[in-house]
Amino acid sequence: MQSGQKNTICLYSQESVNDLRATIQQTKENGYDMMVCSLVVSKVNNMISLTNEERNFSRSDIILESQEWSNNIIAKINDEFDCDSENDAIRLHSEKMLSREIDFADHVITYGFSLLKLTGAQTTNLARIVSSKQLKGQLLLEVPMVDPKSLVATWCTTGPNDSAEYEDPWNWWNTFRSTADFSSKLSIALELSSDIPSKIEITRWQGEPVGCLIVPSQLFVRNNNNYPVLSRAHQNLILSFKEIMSNIAVMVKCNMEDGSLRYYSDYLKNLLSRNPNTDPMYGFDDILETPLQPLYDNLDGYTYEVFEADPIKYLYYQKAIEKALIDLVKEDEIETKTTVVMVVGAGRGPLLRSSLNAAAKSGRKIKLYAIEKNPHAINSLQSLIDELWSDKDIELIAKDMRDFHPPEKADILVSELLGSFGDNELSPECLDGAQKLLKPTGISIPSKYTSYINPVMSSRVYNLIRRCSERSTPRERITTPQNHAEHMYVIYLKNAYHIASPEALFTFEHPNWSDRIDNSRFKTVSFETEIDCVLTGFAGYFDTVLYKDIVLSIHPLSHSKGLASWFPAFFPLMEPVQLRKGEKVTTSFWRCVAPNKVWYEWCLSKPIPSHIHNLKGIHYAIYL
Amino acid sequence: MQSGQKNTICLYSQESVNDLRATIQQTKENGYDMMVCSLVVSKVNNMISLTNEERNFSRSDIILESQEWSNNIIAKINDEFDCDSENDAIRLHSEKMLSREIDFADHVITYGFSLLKLTGAQTTNLARIVSSKQLKGQLLLEVPMVDPKSLVATWCTTGPNDSAEYEDPWNWWNTFRSTADFSSKLSIALELSSDIPSKIEITRWQGEPVGCLIVPSQLFVRNNNNYPVLSRAHQNLILSFKEIMSNIAVMVKCNMEDGSLRYYSDYLKNLLSRNPNTDPMYGFDDILETPLQPLYDNLDGYTYEVFEADPIKYLYYQKAIEKALIDLVKEDEIETKTTVVMVVGAGRGPLLRSSLNAAAKSGRKIKLYAIEKNPHAINSLQSLIDELWSDKDIELIAKDMRDFHPPEKADILVSELLGSFGDNELSPECLDGAQKLLKPTGISIPSKYTSYINPVMSSRVYNLIRRCSERSTPRERITTPQNHAEHMYVIYLKNAYHIASPEALFTFEHPNWSDRIDNSRFKTVSFETEIDCVLTGFAGYFDTVLYKDIVLSIHPLSHSKGLASWFPAFFPLMEPVQLRKGEKVTTSFWRCVAPNKVWYEWCLSKPIPSHIHNLKGIHYAIYL
Repeated sequence: MQSGQKNTICLYSQESVNDLRATIQQTKENGYDMMVCSLVVSKVNNMISLTNEERNFSRSDIILESQEWSNNIIAKINDEFDCDSENDAIRLHSEKMLSREIDFADHVITYGFSLLKLTGAQTTNLARIVSSKQLKGQLLLEVPMVDPKSLVATWCTTGPNDSAEYEDPWNWWNTFRSTADFSSKLSIALELSSDIPSKIEITRWQGEPVGCLIVPSQLFVRNNNNYPVLSRAHQNLILSFKEIMSNIAVMVKCNMEDGSLRYYSDYLKNLLSRNPNTDPMYGFDDILETPLQPLYDNLDGYTYEVFEADPIKYLYYQKAIEKALIDLVKEDEIETKTTVVMVVGAGRGPLLRSSLNAAAKSGRKIKLYAIEKNPHAINSLQSLIDELWSDKDIELIAKDMRDFHPPEKADILVSELLGSFGDNELSPECLDGAQKLLKPTGISIPSKYTSYINPVMSSRVYNLIRRCSERSTPRERITTPQNHAEHMYVIYLKNAYHIASPEALFTFEHPNWSDRIDNSRFKTVSFETEIDCVLTGFAGYFDTVLYKDIVLSIHPLSHSKGLASWFPAFFPLMEPVQLRKGEKVTTSFWRCVAPNKVWYEWCLSKPIPSHIHNLKGIHYAIYL
Repeated sequence: MQSGQKNTICLYSQESVNDLRATIQQTKENGYDMMVCSLVVSKVNNMISLTNEERNFSRSDIILESQEWSNNIIAKINDEFDCDSENDAIRLHSEKMLSREIDFADHVITYGFSLLKLTGAQTTNLARIVSSKQLKGQLLLEVPMVDPKSLVATWCTTGPNDSAEYEDPWNWWNTFRSTADFSSKLSIALELSSDIPSKIEITRWQGEPVGCLIVPSQLFVRNNNNYPVLSRAHQNLILSFKEIMSNIAVMVKCNMEDGSLRYYSDYLKNLLSRNPNTDPMYGFDDILETPLQPLYDNLDGYTYEVFEADPIKYLYYQKAIEKALIDLVKEDEIETKTTVVMVVGAGRGPLLRSSLNAAAKSGRKIKLYAIEKNPHAINSLQSLIDELWSDKDIELIAKDMRDFHPPEKADILVSELLGSFGDNELSPECLDGAQKLLKPTGISIPSKYTSYINPVMSSRVYNLIRRCSERSTPRERITTPQNHAEHMYVIYLKNAYHIASPEALFTFEHPNWSDRIDNSRFKTVSFETEIDCVLTGFAGYFDTVLYKDIVLSIHPLSHSKGLASWFPAFFPLMEPVQLRKGEKVTTSFWRCVAPNKVWYEWCLSKPIPSHIHNLKGIHYAIYL
């Protein structure tokens, strides 16, 4: 529910509403942006009666204007129908009634929201009815965080042995959305419970398309001043969802007669404004990007600018170069020895700046070669050298690093060729080619890098990828997801559940003086599944040793603080794989090398074998 | 291995062959059609030595002509390479060597066969290497029926507790082919063992693309005349495979020095010629057909001819009509009472003939109306009436049954509108419309029909369906299987494993005098998985009560003997689903009815939920 830039507070009244205009007015006065409300006037039709069905069953759609409907009202669909009844009469009647309600809600609300409550896992036919509608609006599926049966049991304290009978409401949602083919029209209205589920259950919900949170008024307790407040645990829960949703919507479920309506909305507004989003990458969340190919394409000015804005990266490079200079030049050689530093792929100069700063800080003399093939960047470099660094010993080489034959060899070779997955911008191939510029005792910065992967559930990302190949006609099921699913992406993953911690994949070290350099790789890694979930792909990361203990990392468990240059990589699976708690996930990744291109292939072997994605690099490759 | 119309006997020698021409000669003299033979001359290269690799490692391809190679030789690929070794040096060397062998074999054998032995389940990288080749020929994967380790254990009698350690070689095959994306280039060379596995394991193999059987010479025992023969159990095993493979290939695995070479081939030829295939439907196996739409299209003469050739169907109709006539007309009314029989959809007259025969046999008088809309069939009917039945009381009505307003109503309404899935040619809709022709006490023949489904594994059918949507360029992975997978087919299923017995789905009865006729249906059925396998879709059948105890059935457990008019229906799943022993398979089927069309939708809910196939009938529907 991300209409507009602010958080939304909704009133979810339990009773039927008579005078809609008056109630909207009352809701607004109590500080709510929207209200959940049934469009059906009476409940007569919910009983099995096949007569009277053509009777006017709902409010007239002209009592509000179209915009008023979608801005103020979330249409609550009756959840008392049993579309999956084994009794055909009940089922057929339910289908008809539900269908009518959904159709009317979509007619009235148009591009707004409807709400339908799930009450169990047997929803195959319900999911069919919902799927067969061409909904214009979004459908929120109301799901409790915890099986309501377990809460009743807690209150009644009927022995702990019954716990096996409780269902996991996540399975209700998962079955429904799987049957509904992961439709992006569906999102979750997640109802908080007095018992807060385990951390892992919460993080799994945070990987799902949660559209809003429902807070039953019973969760509010009275503070010392007799104001209704939420427990610390519930506050934190709500705030943790706010972090993954750019704009959060919260519904208060209560009676219209509740005297504290105003206090609830005030409290929630205050809570949600407490932690404004400070993520510098805000706005990039869950956007699919195709990885850069800086070797094949020339980067543009905007891309350089984004890279150069990283507050951390060049400082680490500077530290690494400084450390290397100190190692190479002893204190008593400072005056006599000049270190040759070559920056391969100098871009618009940030690594030159790091090198010059390192030389200044360490007091070492350097002779700097700036090698760059992009003619637009060379222009910028020349200006920098002429205007800022005219007193420095810098030589600009306007060449592809593979074609440069230097007058002298380097002590230190500095490069920034790493991609989100470490080697994916062909750093191994480039540096192997460039190490002819390096003395046999020379240092490469970076000296080593390793890629990592972990299994991920994200129906959001699954849908983004699927949409890439959607046909122009929206009436047909998406029919060619394959090409786009067999592709590597770069994505700032937010709305995703990380099924297990990353495992190391491929490592490269530089310089590599071995006789036969083979940059192809193959590795199989395994993960444990801690909770039922759905595997939709693998996230990729890397870390790199620039020099000795100077390390840059986007590995989630060791991420360099403030480092902003790289979003994770993502390798999708063509079809989502249902995982059960305790199952092993085993995947194989290949880095394949041909004379003109490099590419990755990947497949699953456990819990079920998949075909090999991107076989022969047909769908995605990095060109040399 | 179905080159030509005859069975093939091959010699699978265990040693390396020096003089190829001479050995081929010797093989032929001993009665073998082909021989399995390595193309590699020496085994030096199999060791880890990265030198000498450009050396000429194999036979020259010019020692035989191209046709000679593919007609006489099955190229054995060395199975000593370990492409999945955790040791990178071994793996890389193995990859290189194997790749070279496969490439050379495919170069030499071209459109013939190669053979590669699987020795375990860890074959992810092996499967990748094989998949990445654009093989022209077929690759036979040699797989033992029973884990060789278990046989060794039997001989050594090292306690029965070890059985948990034995692997199921079907899993070796399944993992390999799943990783290789169910490539239709792969088939199985199934090696028989002295222990014959359980019946279910055998039937599962018979659902797989078995290209040939391998009989190790050790399985032959000496009969009283000292000739090598196979045990009755092994004979039956081989013959049971012959039934599902139109042309069977059998390889004898032995030494060239074995003195009984000639006897083995003689014995096998004799065995295989013993039971010639007498299936009248021979040649229709596993061919995909789109179900007829006789209501929408006019059938052609060939189709009528095929239907009329059924030796059983019209006899059952005749019996049913006879029984109905006897029930309607008591003995003492024979002379006075004339029964009105209407045949709706008379085609070229077979049901008229059944009716006339029934009248003659029962001695009842009938007045016959023949209603037919197809102008070409009407022509044939008029000739029949004029020439054969000019003395009978027959009236020909050249109309759609829905438009006919009869001068009198029928006592018996006879129709043959049933499809492979019972109602799928819209019999319910047609007969509901036609029952206005029937007296309130009248009889409909058929009076009732029920559809059935069961879960099926068939990678052959999966590939046939996938191929429907293959792109013209064979270099890319098939990219749009969806449309074709969300379609109902008719298919004479042979190379398929039936995972469980059929369950009843939809039932219709006629006449249906209820106030509101609803021919939409929804049903969920469940099955048990008895053994690990792969679900690729559901086969569909029907049975019909023509009248009282006269039943026609294509349900496999009650199939009417000799009935040949209907092949099973088939409902594919878009993606194969791996099943484990003991897992429940739950599926839901819908019969959906709109004013202009009827269609089926289907989905899986256990063991994993699938999307709803053919939602809204977008991919396949039957038009009214």
